[in-house]
Order: sequence, then C-alpha cells, then structure tokens
Amino acid sequence: MSLTETAGESAPHIGVLPSGPRGTVADVGGVTVGHCTLDEGAVQTGVTVIRPHRGDLFVSKVPAAASVINGFGKSIGLVQVEELGVLETPIALTNTFGVAAVAQAQIRAAIQGNPQIGREWSTVNPLVFECNDGYLNDIQALAVSERHYNDACEAASLDVVSGSVGAGRGMSCFDLKGGIGNASRIIDVAGRSYTVGALVLANFGRLPMLTIDGAPLGRVLAERAAKAVAASAATSATASKPEQGSIIMIVATDAPLDARQLKRLSLRAAAGLARTGSVYGHGSGDIALAFSTAYTVPHESDFVALPPVLADARLDPLFRACADSVEQAIIDALWSATSVTGRDGHHRLSLHDTASDLAQLLKQSS
Amino acid sequence: MSLTETAGESAPHIGVLPSGPRGTVADVGGVTVGHCTLDEGAVQTGVTVIRPHRGDLFVSKVPAAASVINGFGKSIGLVQVEELGVLETPIALTNTFGVAAVAQAQIRAAIQGNPQIGREWSTVNPLVFECNDGYLNDIQALAVSERHYNDACEAASLDVVSGSVGAGRGMSCFDLKGGIGNASRIIDVAGRSYTVGALVLANFGRLPMLTIDGAPLGRVLAERAAKAVAASAATSATASKPEQGSIIMIVATDAPLDARQLKRLSLRAAAGLARTGSVYGHGSGDIALAFSTAYTVPHESDFVALPPVLADARLDPLFRACADSVEQAIIDALWSATSVTGRDGHHRLSLHDTASDLAQLLKQSS
Amino acid sequence: MSLTETAGESAPHIGVLPSGPRGTVADVGGVTVGHCTLDEGAVQTGVTVIRPHRGDLFVSKVPAAASVINGFGKSIGLVQVEELGVLETPIALTNTFGVAAVAQAQIRAAIQGNPQIGREWSTVNPLVFECNDGYLNDIQALAVSERHYNDACEAASLDVVSGSVGAGRGMSCFDLKGGIGNASRIIDVAGRSYTVGALVLANFGRLPMLTIDGAPLGRVLAERAAKAVAASAATSATASKPEQGSIIMIVATDAPLDARQLKRLSLRAAAGLARTGSVYGHGSGDIALAFSTAYTVPHESDFVALPPVLADARLDPLFRACADSVEQAIIDALWSATSVTGRDGHHRLSLHDTASDLAQLLKQSS
Amino acid sequence: MSLTETAGESAPHIGVLPSGPRGTVADVGGVTVGHCTLDEGAVQTGVTVIRPHRGDLFVSKVPAAASVINGFGKSIGLVQVEELGVLETPIALTNTFGVAAVAQAQIRAAIQGNPQIGREWSTVNPLVFECNDGYLNDIQALAVSERHYNDACEAASLDVVSGSVGAGRGMSCFDLKGGIGNASRIIDVAGRSYTVGALVLANFGRLPMLTIDGAPLGRVLAERAAKAVAASAATSATASKPEQGSIIMIVATDAPLDARQLKRLSLRAAAGLARTGSVYGHGSGDIALAFSTAYTVPHESDFVALPPVLADARLDPLFRACADSVEQAIIDALWSATSVTGRDGHHRLSLHDTASDLAQLLKQSS
Repeated sequence: MSLTETAGESAPHIGVLPSGPRGTVADVGGVTVGHCTLDEGAVQTGVTVIRPHRGDLFVSKVPAAASVINGFGKSIGLVQVEELGVLETPIALTNTFGVAAVAQAQIRAAIQGNPQIGREWSTVNPLVFECNDGYLNDIQALAVSERHYNDACEAASLDVVSGSVGAGRGMSCFDLKGGIGNASRIIDVAGRSYTVGALVLANFGRLPMLTIDGAPLGRVLAERAAKAVAASAATSATASKPEQGSIIMIVATDAPLDARQLKRLSLRAAAGLARTGSVYGHGSGDIALAFSTAYTVPHESDFVALPPVLADARLDPLFRACADSVEQAIIDALWSATSVTGRDGHHRLSLHDTASDLAQLLKQSS
Repeated sequence: MSLTETAGESAPHIGVLPSGPRGTVADVGGVTVGHCTLDEGAVQTGVTVIRPHRGDLFVSKVPAAASVINGFGKSIGLVQVEELGVLETPIALTNTFGVAAVAQAQIRAAIQGNPQIGREWSTVNPLVFECNDGYLNDIQALAVSERHYNDACEAASLDVVSGSVGAGRGMSCFDLKGGIGNASRIIDVAGRSYTVGALVLANFGRLPMLTIDGAPLGRVLAERAAKAVAASAATSATASKPEQGSIIMIVATDAPLDARQLKRLSLRAAAGLARTGSVYGHGSGDIALAFSTAYTVPHESDFVALPPVLADARLDPLFRACADSVEQAIIDALWSATSVTGRDGHHRLSLHDTASDLAQLLKQSS
Repeated sequence: MSLTETAGESAPHIGVLPSGPRGTVADVGGVTVGHCTLDEGAVQTGVTVIRPHRGDLFVSKVPAAASVINGFGKSIGLVQVEELGVLETPIALTNTFGVAAVAQAQIRAAIQGNPQIGREWSTVNPLVFECNDGYLNDIQALAVSERHYNDACEAASLDVVSGSVGAGRGMSCFDLKGGIGNASRIIDVAGRSYTVGALVLANFGRLPMLTIDGAPLGRVLAERAAKAVAASAATSATASKPEQGSIIMIVATDAPLDARQLKRLSLRAAAGLARTGSVYGHGSGDIALAFSTAYTVPHESDFVALPPVLADARLDPLFRACADSVEQAIIDALWSATSVTGRDGHHRLSLHDTASDLAQLLKQSS
Repeated sequence: MSLTETAGESAPHIGVLPSGPRGTVADVGGVTVGHCTLDEGAVQTGVTVIRPHRGDLFVSKVPAAASVINGFGKSIGLVQVEELGVLETPIALTNTFGVAAVAQAQIRAAIQGNPQIGREWSTVNPLVFECNDGYLNDIQALAVSERHYNDACEAASLDVVSGSVGAGRGMSCFDLKGGIGNASRIIDVAGRSYTVGALVLANFGRLPMLTIDGAPLGRVLAERAAKAVAASAATSATASKPEQGSIIMIVATDAPLDARQLKRLSLRAAAGLARTGSVYGHGSGDIALAFSTAYTVPHESDFVALPPVLADARLDPLFRACADSVEQAIIDALWSATSVTGRDGHHRLSLHDTASDLAQLLKQSS
C-alpha cells in the first residue's frame, strides 16, 4: 500500500510506469531509511538518513553522482562526489543550520567503524543535504545535534514513512505543509526488470504554482483562499514573498550504471520537479543525487570490477522512471504531510486540511 | 496576433504572464529572425538565424550563456561562450550535418565585415546549433551550403514566422511535424517592465509523451491512432524506436543580466521543456542559450561598462517567463507546422492534420 | 619586508612582477587575516580566517568564484558560490574534521550580526576549506571548536603571519613542514595599477617533487636523505605512500572583475601550483577561490551596480600575477614554517631545519 | 630514437619516468597518426589525425573525456564527448578556420563506413580541435578542404613525425616555430606496466615565458634578442602583443579507465603545460582530451562490459606520466620544428635556428 493513500484518498498515479510494491525508495533492494523527528514547540525539525546498503559504506562505497539544478544550497560533500563518483557515508538530510552537526556525526561514526580514517587511511567525506525550514522551525536554535543523526541511522528500516517526519518535520511546499515524499517505478530494460526509487525533501514553491499531474490545483486553491474572508493570515502574509525553499531529490536504482550515467539520471529529477510547477526559483536549492546499488567500490583495491553497465542508448526508461518517481514523490510529500504548528505560532496546513474536497477538486481540474 | 492562431484555433496560453505584442522572440527589442527553407523533394531542411541586434556582432558582442541539458548534440561555439560569456556572430540553427557549412559561412561573413580577423585580431567564434531532421530530410545529401546561411541572414526581420520553415522544415516533434516555435512574456521586475522571448527548434519526443498545458493530449492521440485500422504506417513504424531528436531553445531578454545570470536563466528552459512531456531523452541534444540585449561588449576596449544588473533575488519572474515562453514556443511549433513529405516518401502530419477536432480534444482532456 | 626572509635567507622571487609592500594577501586593500593556533601535544591544528573587508559580509557581499582542480576535498559552501558568485562570510580554513565546527560558528556569527537570517531573510552560506593534517595532528580528537573560529576572526589584522600557524599548524608539504604561505604581485593593466594577493594552506606533495623556481630541490634533498644512514624514520616511512594532502589557494585582487572573470582568475592558481611540482594528486583536494574587493553586492537591492570591469582581453597580467603569487606563497609556506612535533611523536622538519645549507643548495641546483 | 634528437642535440628528458620506445603517442598500442601538410607560399597549414585504433570508431567507440583549461577555442565535438564519454571518429587537428571542412569530411567518412548514420542510426559526432596559425598562414584563405582530412587519415602510421608538419605547419610557440610534439612515459601500476602518450599542437606563449625543464631559457633568449641590433623585426613587432595562440593536448593510454577517470587524467595536462611557462593566457584555447585503448564501446548493444578499471587511488603514476608527457611533447614540438616563412613574408625561426648554442645555453641556465 502506498503511503499516499493514508489520508483515505489516494494520490493520482503519475505516468504509465508501474510503482514498486512499497511505493518508496526502499523498493530498490537494500535501501533503508530512518527518521529522527524533533517536535517540541518552536523546534519542528529533524534528520532523515538514506542508507544505500546495510554494510559499512566507507569500506564498500556505492557509485553516485549529483546534479545541482539551482545551487542556492548549503550541502556538504558534493565536491568529492563529483570528483570520485562514490558515496562513503549514508545520505543525510536536515535543516540548513543542522548540516554541521550532522556532518560531525557522520565523521565520528565513520571513525568509529574504521579507526584508520584520518590516520593510515584518508579522511571521510560527509554528505549532508538541507532545506530551510525556518518558517515553522526556530532554525536559529540550532537544535539538531549529532545524536539525532545517530538516532535516524538506527531507525533505518524498510518501512519508509513520508510526511511531516524527520528532516521533513518543518518543511513547507507550495505554502502548504511539505516534507518527506517517496515513490518508485519498475521498468524493463534490455530484457531485465529494474527499479528506480525516489525520496524527496520537499520545501519549495508558492501555492499558485502547484500542479498535480498536469492539473493547476494550486491556482484553484489560491483563488479559493483569496475569496475567503477568513483567509489564513499566514498564507496571505507570505504569498507575495519569493521562495526561500529548496528541494533535495535522492534517486536510487538497482540498474548497473557508472557515475557518469548516474549524473545523467540525476538530472532527470529536474523534469519531474518542473511538472509540479517549479521553475527552479532563485532562492531554492534544488539538488538531485542518484546512486546505484548494483555494485560497490571497495576502499582498498588496485582495480574496480564493475558489472556490465547499461548502454547509454538504453537509459530512456530509467530517465522516465526518475522523472515520474520524483514528481510522484513530491505529490506524496503533500499527500502524506500532516498540519504542523511551530515557532511564533506559525502554522502550515496540510493539503488535506486545506482542501477537504481534494478528491473532487482533482476530478474537476484535470 | 500570435502565430499560434494561424490555423484558426488558437493554442492555449501557458501560465499567467502576458505575451508580448508579437508573441515571438522579436518582442525583445532589436532581435530579428530570418529563415532559408530548402523544400526540394528529398531535401527538406534549412537554416534559421537569430540576430540579437542589427549591428556587427563581432564589434559589439552581446552577453550570453548556455545550459547543456542533454549533450547528445553537435553544435559548434559553446566552449567559447562558456568561457567568455558573449556571442560574436548571429545564432544559427540548421540540421546536424549542416553545421560545418553554416559555421564556414559565419567565419566568411565575419572576415568580410572585419578583415582584421585572423590577422591583427583574434579569430571569430561561429555559433551553430542543430537537430537531426533525417526522418524527413535526406540528411546525407549535405544539402545545406554557405549560401543558405547568407540568405537567412538577409531575410532577418521583425516578422518572425513559425512552423515548417528554415531549420524547422524537416523537424519532427512528438511524432508529429515539428519545427520553429516562438513565444514571449512580459514581466514587471523592480518597477520596470522587461520582455523574455523564446525561439525553439523542436525536434524531440514520442507522441504518447505530448502534454499541452498539463493535458495528456499525446496519450489521447496515440490511443486513437492505435485503434484506427488505417493507422499511419510511418507513425507505427517509429513508435517503438527511441528518440533521435533534439531541441534548441534560444531565449532573449532585454533585462540587464550578466553572463552568470544568463546561464541561470537559460537553465529554466528545462522546466518549460519538461512540462511538454520531455524527460531529456538520451538521444536528444537539449540545449538552451540565453542572451541579453541590454548592453553590448566591445571587441576592443580596456573596460566593459555594464548597466546595473538585476539582483539575483529579483530573477524569479524572469525564470518563470523563460519556462513559460519555452513551453509556449514548443506548442507554437506544433500549432504552426504544416504537414511535410520528404525523403523515401516519409510523411509527417501536422498536429492540425492529425486532429481536426483539436480544439474539442483539448477541452475534453484538460 | 617579506615574511619569507624571516629565516635569514630570503626565498627566491618568482617571476618578473614586483611584490606588494607586505608580500602578503593583505596587500590587497581591505583584506585582513587572523589565525587561531592549537598547539597542545597531539593537537597541532587551528583555524585561519581571511576577511575580504572589515564590514558585515552578509550585508555587503564580495564577488567570488572557485576552481576545483582536484575535488578530493570536504569544503562547505562552494555550491552556492558557484551559483551566485558571491561570498557572504569570511573565508575560513581548518583541518578536515574541523569544517563542521567552523561552519557552525560562521552561522552563529552571521545570525548575531543579522537576526533576520533564517527568519525574514534567507539563510547564510558558510564557507570553510580544509586540508588533512592527520600526520601531525590527532585529527580524530575533533579539537577545533566554534570558539577557535571566533578567535581567528578577532585576531584578523593587516600583519599576516605565515608558517606553522592557524590552520597551517599541523600541515605537511613535500614531506616537510607546510602551512600558511603568502605572496602578492603588483601589475599594470589599462593604465592602472592593481594588486593580486595569495594566501595558501599548503599540505600536499612528496619530497622528490619539490621544485623551487624551476630547480629540483626536492630531488636533491631526497637523494641526500636516502644516502644518510640516519635518514629520518618519519620521512622514510611515508616516502612510498601516496599523497593524502591538499592545498587551498585563496586569491584576492582589487581589480574590478565579475564572478565569471574571477573563476578564470582562480584557475590560474593551478599553474602556480604545478610549477612547485604538483600534478594535482588523486588524494589532494586542490581548490582555488578568487575574490575581488573592487565592489560589493548588497544583500537587499533591486539592482547591482558594478564599476566598469576589466575587459577579458586585458586579464593576462592578472593571470600571471595569480600564478606567480600562488607559487611564491607555497614557497613562503615552506620558508616560514617551523618544525613541529605532534601526535604519536610524529615530527615534521621545516625546510630550513632539513637543509641548513639551503641558500647554497638553491644556488647549485638552479 | 626520440624525434627530439633529430637536430643533433637531444632535448632534456623531463622527470624520472622512462619514455616508451618511440617517444610518441604511438607507444600506446594501436594508436597511429597521420599528417597532411600544406606548404604553398602564404598557405602554411595542414591537418593531423590521431586514430585511437585501426577499426571503425563509430562501431567501436573508445572511452574519452576532455578538460577545457581555457575555453578561447572553436573546436567541435566536445559537448557530446562530455555527455557520453566516448569518441566515435578519429581526432582531427587543424587551423581555426579549417574546423568546418574537416568536420564535414569526418561526417562524410562516417556515412561512407556506415550508411545507416542519419537514417536508422543516430548521427555522428565529429571531433575537431584547432589553433590559430594566422601569423604564418593565410588563414583567411580557408585553404583546408575535406580532401586534406582524408589524406591525413590515409597517412596514419606508427611512424609519428613531430615538428612543422600537418596541423603544426603554421603554428608558433613562444614566438618561435611551434607545431606537433610527441612524448610518452611508461609506468608501473598495481603490478602492471602501462603507457601514457601525448601529442600536442603547440601554438601558445611569448618568448620570455619559455621554461625548459625548469630553466628560464626564454628569458635568456629574449634578453639576447633585445641586445642584438639586428633583432628580428617580426619578433619585436609581436613581442608586446598578447597571446592569440592555443594548445591542444591529446593524451592516450592503454590503462583501463572509465570516462570519469579520463577526465581526471586529461586535467593533468594543465600541470605539464604550466611547467613550460604558460599561465593559460586569455586568448589561448587550452584543451586536453584523454582516451583509453583498453576497451571499446559498441555502437549497438544492451550492455557495455568494461574490464576492471584502475582504482582512483592508483592513478597518481598516470597523472605524473600525463604531466611529464605533455611537458615533454611541448619541448619536442620546439625541438623538432623547422623554420617556416609564410604569408606576407612572416617568418618564424625554429628554436635551433634561434640558438645555435642551445645545448650550451641549457647547461648554463639549468
């Protein structure tokens, strides 16, 4: 059962490719996800961790690459991913001012696992992405600490929860409650079946942009809100302000791809993102990272033996699956989110709380 | 009057921003466009030229930058544009195997205008983009010659024609007739009014992907075609083959931007492209180039004086205008195209010839 | 007096361009540098801060751009510098595992200066570079804390010290003691005089590579060491191991350049680096960042007014000054360093302690 | 016997790695090179072709990647090499205004070999690099034609000639006669022996910059020329002008590397180039391309099977071999070149004709 059905009304299925059984990034074999959620008054934030496999990532790295679609972002780790094409820690997501604490925790965890790091061995490359949840969360409190990363790691499992959890706790999307979203797609390429999964941290967009499977739902909702006498003060106050959001899009696949091909794959997240209404706003750090679980790269070896990789001319189904998964995962974030009240009484309504007649609206506008 | 209305049924207006008076790239002051069309049996191709201003571009260069969204392309000139952030020739579009002839023509024209080139002065950087029109055009005939570039230059005017003309003569898009498309948008930024215009050479996509203003028109048409007993042989023959197309997206603006900002602007073409159904297919050379007409960069000078440029935090309206213009221009290409028969009897139906009930279809599917 | 003369034997002057009066990055007007040095047994590390001007950098940003020459590095902040072309914090240097603490300190300092950050305003982009000083420093101790960044900021002055100080405390270079190096050059361009200054954190290379002003000093020293019966155990133990070092090269200029031009300038650091013997080794994070003090970019404004920028065709003297300054700064790091003993009794001899006959050696080998 | 010995005085051997038996790029097994030289009065130019293997490159592509060190260049083909990481034609070098004719010839040759190109198959990506030989060559004559590319291809052999031949015919380097240069190095990595070879088209630099194995030979020669009453008018006339040159550096290896690693390798050409005195001048198109002959990538297949590739941590010897080969190849170009008189009586003296006491000078200055 897809998590997008939890509210009783299932989200529209994007595109023609079938979803995997879980409808989450964990449909890609070996991938697990854990959240640590901070929900204490003005502190509405957290940490989310994606583990590409259950082993020691420093010893058995996975191939990966990223596309910076709009670089208004404060991640750590992308310089080395670009150069070497591998991950060597779990992927961590948090709020903008939590990056340092989480990176520190990744370093400490890597040293604990491999005491040679920074001694006989090279150092470890932390990999932390972020969005600014400062509307709901008291981001200046710097509430995220190393412990929260560790808790998220320990919580990692196949049962991936979407919505107002983990790093998604305080995020806003299209002036609605955003957060963590998931999706997956199954494709047939060269006679074999592969899975592409996406997990997004969605924190971008203004309401009028919101497009669901091609339908201008955001325009409808914005007009309705404008008409309402009791329009939410919070919404109207922010409506004319530019985006200060971001979206992080993590794409996993079990297809055998090298880092160059994963970079190509990661860029297709931009297509899925655009379909939801984004034009990659100035203030939005829009970053996609793709990794493959088809093989690992050992820390110490003379040679790296890859399985045969898919020919580039066979990548189109993966590109489509990436775009569709990312679009679906953004919708899942909206569908799964619950309303949250945070610092200074700021309140974000979930999509469901905003539009109790959501199912009907979607039928009308599409 | 927008060119998209020529078939009697106007194309849907994308987004909420108003169009400029012409609805073409020439709404950006100073920009002119010329076509040279080759329509002789198996030769269905041509050259299109966009002139950023009417002066000598080598002497008075314009700021520019490009985004390579998918680099399956054979353009010439982007290396130097990336390094120096200026154009110094008109922008030329043609078929993949016409690039060399057109580049040669640009070199000869530049030398004619400035005999110091390659002597006392540095050489000139030709700038030619291409798509593969090999389905309709006998591309192996290498029919494009230097003369055709010169003819297109001479034909440059404010009256910009879209459709099966110039470089667009032999292009296909979503298994329909593609070609040249135009659009523009007017925006208010920082108390001033600016224009963004787009001209595309649209030659990408398979029919089922086609999305018009969010509506899955392509899926409807593909299902109808599949049902029809007399389904076009050409269409069915190609339906399962991967894309070998491309799209070139030229974005002009009169807003004062530097080359770094123009690179940011050019990338937003990817958002407009995605909304029409593209996922930047492997075999599609998807390239966007943006230039500004707000100032010129002299060939010889010690300093370059720029007008005050827009602050990056004010760019969102331009980003939206770019995405909307590109999406609209792709639709304009489909709307404006006429059916063409080319080499080996290959035939591409225009959208209007494919769906005589287009207006009705659009109403139903959106 | 150049700091490279402190050991009584002045370092050779690289190239034909004259040095500025201080021979440091602070010859570029407005630039100041501060160190915080940690020298406590196994903890041999620190923080160095370069302040482009004395004001609030978040409010008055400076144009900047970087070149990642080899991306085996764990810096934070480059994604946004690449997108927006500005710095909005001082530039901080530290050890690899100190990045997080320093970034946290930068965030806290920015919030203190501008409480709107993360509230009405966007978040701040910390900018921290690092090298791995794990040979001398107990890097696993994570000894760098937020306080050390603040101390380095407060210590910032025009009197810039090179050598085994600040972030350079534990660094090694060519198997000798490395650390902080400085240099500057004065150039005439377009009838005006400009300054280029460099500050490096030098932590790369194996001894046999070391080249001083074209002379293979490293080969001479390595052969001498190999012959000596009592060759340093530390040196011989590490001689066959690959580089795990890095170099950070900060280039400042008062010439009016935009971010695109500063990116071009920053890349010329690679030329200066190569001349000292580096081939940008796999394990070496070689990153250059260039900024201009000729103008600032306000945080809040509709337009950004730049002074006339130098024409690209006039940049060659700046390119040369950048390469020469970086080469000179690396030599200065070696010349200024003092020997250091750190964790597990590891010891790095300074160049002067290694070769008491340095002046004579240089005369012979060049 | 190395070609650098032809003048009776062998060039200094750069670095400590041994050369291959030929001292040319053809030491990498399978690589052949052909020249077509145009030497007719004012026309002093030509075409050089590097064939990575003797088969059909479109059918059996080779992995490749490039680094644009300074993008003042007019090559064709790099956009697709960057995206797909393969070559599918021989690599061609010519003068700046010969690119179009050579690209056309490559297209025609590819079609002749594979008539499916531009029909059932995708189009072919021509790959042509250039330097501006306009000082000696009447570049405005556009003398290079398709035939010259074909002649160079047919002339390809293992006996690679350096000097004033092929594309190098009209090139200048450090105000001396430049042209084609070659070198190779043998390295041991992971218990196996590999070869790195370089072929350069050297056309950059002003005399005072010239550095040979660390010795400032150019400064010595420039001072001598300044003192001489009968200093060459041509040299003095150009001495104060900025560079309008370029250098193309082609690096071949038989080591098994993927495209990402080849990109890393190609960048190390910048280190070799810098050691000869270059700071990557504004007007110099400095581009390096590296390819591997260890495996091929079929045009049509579902999967691509790579041999085990070298681990990134084992690449340092290759990086060194690349830098040394490129430096050596530039010296080889100077050593092998013969003096040439071209358009308008312009004359470039070879290094040997400039300094008959070259051997002695080198001994003195190093």
